[in-house]
Amino acid sequence: MEKEKKPPELEKLVRPNVAALDDILGVPFCVSDHGFIRLIDYMGDDKAIVQAARVSYGAGTKKVQGDRALIRYLMRHSHTTPFEMCEIKLHVRVPMDTWRQWIRHRTANVNEYSTRYSIAIDATQYTAPDQWRTQSIASRQGSSGRLPRAAGEKLSASEQKFLIKARELYGERIAAGVAREQARKDLPLSTFTEAYWKIDLHNLLNFLSLRMDAHAQQEIRAYATVIGEEIVAKWMPIVWEAFLDYRKNRLQFSRIEAEIVRAIVASNLDGAVHIARENGLLDTDGDGNLVPNRERGEIEEKLRLLGVMLPWVR
Amino acid sequence: MEKEKKPPELEKLVRPNVAALDDILGVPFCVSDHGFIRLIDYMGDDKAIVQAARVSYGAGTKKVQGDRALIRYLMRHSHTTPFEMCEIKLHVRVPMDTWRQWIRHRTANVNEYSTRYSIAIDATQYTAPDQWRTQSIASRQGSSGRLPRAAGEKLSASEQKFLIKARELYGERIAAGVAREQARKDLPLSTFTEAYWKIDLHNLLNFLSLRMDAHAQQEIRAYATVIGEEIVAKWMPIVWEAFLDYRKNRLQFSRIEAEIVRAIVASNLDGAVHIARENGLLDTDGDGNLVPNRERGEIEEKLRLLGVMLPWVR
Amino acid sequence: MEKEKKPPELEKLVRPNVAALDDILGVPFCVSDHGFIRLIDYMGDDKAIVQAARVSYGAGTKKVQGDRALIRYLMRHSHTTPFEMCEIKLHVRVPMDTWRQWIRHRTANVNEYSTRYSIAIDATQYTAPDQWRTQSIASRQGSSGRLPRAAGEKLSASEQKFLIKARELYGERIAAGVAREQARKDLPLSTFTEAYWKIDLHNLLNFLSLRMDAHAQQEIRAYATVIGEEIVAKWMPIVWEAFLDYRKNRLQFSRIEAEIVRAIVASNLDGAVHIARENGLLDTDGDGNLVPNRERGEIEEKLRLLGVMLPWVR
Amino acid sequence: MEKEKKPPELEKLVRPNVAALDDILGVPFCVSDHGFIRLIDYMGDDKAIVQAARVSYGAGTKKVQGDRALIRYLMRHSHTTPFEMCEIKLHVRVPMDTWRQWIRHRTANVNEYSTRYSIAIDATQYTAPDQWRTQSIASRQGSSGRLPRAAGEKLSASEQKFLIKARELYGERIAAGVAREQARKDLPLSTFTEAYWKIDLHNLLNFLSLRMDAHAQQEIRAYATVIGEEIVAKWMPIVWEAFLDYRKNRLQFSRIEAEIVRAIVASNLDGAVHIARENGLLDTDGDGNLVPNRERGEIEEKLRLLGVMLPWVR
Repeated sequence: MEKEKKPPELEKLVRPNVAALDDILGVPFCVSDHGFIRLIDYMGDDKAIVQAARVSYGAGTKKVQGDRALIRYLMRHSHTTPFEMCEIKLHVRVPMDTWRQWIRHRTANVNEYSTRYSIAIDATQYTAPDQWRTQSIASRQGSSGRLPRAAGEKLSASEQKFLIKARELYGERIAAGVAREQARKDLPLSTFTEAYWKIDLHNLLNFLSLRMDAHAQQEIRAYATVIGEEIVAKWMPIVWEAFLDYRKNRLQFSRIEAEIVRAIVASNLDGAVHIARENGLLDTDGDGNLVPNRERGEIEEKLRLLGVMLPWVR
Repeated sequence: MEKEKKPPELEKLVRPNVAALDDILGVPFCVSDHGFIRLIDYMGDDKAIVQAARVSYGAGTKKVQGDRALIRYLMRHSHTTPFEMCEIKLHVRVPMDTWRQWIRHRTANVNEYSTRYSIAIDATQYTAPDQWRTQSIASRQGSSGRLPRAAGEKLSASEQKFLIKARELYGERIAAGVAREQARKDLPLSTFTEAYWKIDLHNLLNFLSLRMDAHAQQEIRAYATVIGEEIVAKWMPIVWEAFLDYRKNRLQFSRIEAEIVRAIVASNLDGAVHIARENGLLDTDGDGNLVPNRERGEIEEKLRLLGVMLPWVR
Repeated sequence: MEKEKKPPELEKLVRPNVAALDDILGVPFCVSDHGFIRLIDYMGDDKAIVQAARVSYGAGTKKVQGDRALIRYLMRHSHTTPFEMCEIKLHVRVPMDTWRQWIRHRTANVNEYSTRYSIAIDATQYTAPDQWRTQSIASRQGSSGRLPRAAGEKLSASEQKFLIKARELYGERIAAGVAREQARKDLPLSTFTEAYWKIDLHNLLNFLSLRMDAHAQQEIRAYATVIGEEIVAKWMPIVWEAFLDYRKNRLQFSRIEAEIVRAIVASNLDGAVHIARENGLLDTDGDGNLVPNRERGEIEEKLRLLGVMLPWVR
Repeated sequence: MEKEKKPPELEKLVRPNVAALDDILGVPFCVSDHGFIRLIDYMGDDKAIVQAARVSYGAGTKKVQGDRALIRYLMRHSHTTPFEMCEIKLHVRVPMDTWRQWIRHRTANVNEYSTRYSIAIDATQYTAPDQWRTQSIASRQGSSGRLPRAAGEKLSASEQKFLIKARELYGERIAAGVAREQARKDLPLSTFTEAYWKIDLHNLLNFLSLRMDAHAQQEIRAYATVIGEEIVAKWMPIVWEAFLDYRKNRLQFSRIEAEIVRAIVASNLDGAVHIARENGLLDTDGDGNLVPNRERGEIEEKLRLLGVMLPWVR
């Protein structure tokens, strides 16, 4: 009979620390004009994930694979609990508009600056004339391209005037003795807020996966990119590499997409077209033209990434 | 040997429904000028809590106490899991300023109106001249009293002009082709948003406990009160009664407060003073005057509620 | 300027119900010998997801895509919040061993049968002679194949004797007046427990995704399969179809795998081998034989699914 | 106009550490025969709570109250978010029976020893002859008193034989090649398991509040007490003191209880009796005897704690 896993060596421990993080503790990384991210504290490192996983999988894993291989295995197979064993605490300053998206990540601990208790932060995110983005047509919820300079200058000038007016309004109320909790009611969403934000590594990777994505709004993407590239990459080099290989840069094929690729690989282009048609991806209008179809567009993009000719464009 | 709890009668069930709720499904309860709360769906009723509790406690409970007594027992002893067995879904329209507080309750499901995807709702919460509240002195984060009418009129006029200006600014941007996700950046916090909000009864009671409280900001209190009194009270009459008796209207005494009351009850006023002094509640300044102390103020309020003379004021 | 999304028609609503579910309310689906799953209540249906999504995305979505297309879009892009808007409540009877895995899904509401309060359920999961599974070599945490009948008979006989003995031991303690909370301490993990289990659809799909998977332990897979195929498929036919197409039967390629496939599609087999080698997938031992490598095995399986020859096996 | 809160001094930080905890990192605290608790890592200290609270409340708080007063204020008023800013990671070894209760605390991160992957831990919690507790009559879910020595000896002997038999059964299966995931199915609940358990301070205090309570089962109470008294008390001396004063040793009065006390304080004993009667606490049977009533019992206990005569016992 195989022997029981030996009890862990119950010796004294020293707290894990990461020199590259200790160097940046408290130092603000600037984001946009008045925003920043500061690392306040952290718990764990790459080895802490291995340590936790080895409690689950037993000492036997040690022989089977080294630390890096184990972490990559965990990431590849979405074994997420060991990644929850690390924690990070940040101090962030972001526009309220961005914060409205940020706070939707519920599995985190938050202490936000209170504009009931204190005077609102006197800083707003101003948009420079060349920074106005035009509405994307392709994506109802995105932007693409920039407004012409002249138009941008007009909008930036209007904004500046408006923001000054907004602060005056707030100031008048405070001066008149209005309660802070009510005086704030018309602050523009571009007003900065601050928060301590604490989250475990697994949920942080979820946050980064969504907010570093090309579809995320540029403003929050800027913050997420700093957290990912300036902090997590230093904190957890092995995890970060695995995250890029197995999550951020992975390619997913639905059942339908996988069947189409399989047909193409087998040089069965007619079969590929057939599968697409059966799944409603090649519907045509009265004139025989393909009806726009979002899912078909997504498949085409993946096929191009694989360097495959589109079977329905011959 | 006592017999095992009989397996539940595994007969067919009918979904529980509450006629008083079915009557108000979808009907908006108005809150503030443009806000509302609408009941969209619900799961469970008073009996569903009893049903879940009886799985835990076994059929034996049936003999011991009736449904009402069981629910009151659960509430009194913070046995919270049976209350999680009921769920409610609301459609709400609230100012973003209020939503910023609302969304801090993390154990809930949320779909909020997207101003990335759609044009922002063209409604803001306007404050009437007699509705401007003055900053509370006692509580740094509260309000008390109203501003004089004349001052209020000035502020309301300013607000109205500002809100029109804000909407114009937004409109100009949209007209110029700015992406919605960016055009919204200076919307005032008083702009309304909408959301579907789904939460279990236990977490809803936590929300109500905090947000119906006298310390909650008036704006969110108005919403919480409607949810509590117009919806939960009808949905769960027995739970609601127990909630009022055992949570909302309970009185808590810290170890220190309990010791002081005990001394007073024993007519040992000197002892009561001694306990207060030892716990730093009766510190004096150079002139022998009591230094302001928040905790002492809280104790005094509770003693007054009990009709007890303050032992240190003789 | 595009018009604001119209406020939702604020008319009276009727609770959504699903006739196919109402038919099975309370009816036990048997799983293993003494186990079952019963549907107790539910909230929402396919349309409720669409309704919640339309609050986020605005009424404009209606023109763009029908209900089915919208649900499939949400599933494909992991827009998970609308799926949280539906809820289900089950009554389950499972062996404690299975429950130990089940309860690891934290985002759920639970009331479990209390063996502190009541006598333990007098039923255990017995294993028939032909049901003993052998340890998998490939996966340290799985099983594969069955034990020979003769060996199985011996083990089943031992088990039966042991389970009788275990119940006697428990009975003796109860008879001697031992507290239930202590008497239970040696109950075998195969003892059945019961619970009310309530969860939102999004988290239920996570549960099903993990527990219907081929790597899940057979015992919990049996329960998950019943929930998926007998309940969710009837409750949410459109969601279920989308779940199968876009989650359960999807194929994921890591950055490395995608690069290899791209090289193969371009008939650049040497390039494919090069990428694999660079990523440590083709390490050899002293004799030039490929060292076993788990990740390579996974890639090979996916390539076979696509009908692609392995570039390193020529 | 009051000045905005100064931005935090954005200077470099040093990680907070607590020498008293560093001394015990990794050192096992023994609980029951084979159980232990080991501190693996921690994040934050008393000051970290103050730091987070000051982001919310603004620098203004500094003048108003010192660190200790602020922490006590936060605890007294259930301002829980700053307590979430600290985190602790433990390595625990507990019987599965205890673990079944432990794991019900959902807001925690867990990696448990896997008996699918590894051979089950060869240790069970054995009960000594003088440690068998009798069923409580007062509380259906508790114990009180001990079994006589002779009876205990018989039960302990039976247990020992049974546990040996259980291990043999497990060993036979493993030897026969049964998969570990199935071989474990009849392990007694007294079998030890291990886990890494990580939780924030707020949720840890909830855990301690419930599990150090007199109503908690003795086995888990032993673990909770070690965590509270050996670890948290050293980690967070100010928080711990506040926890004892304002949570653990607080006294709660329901609306009904508060009204009764008020009447008693006003020497209105008849009024007190009247309130009790109106709330169904003094119902009598046919012979005029008080019907047993759990809530009355609870009130009587609190009145005794306050040194008050029971108004209905005259």
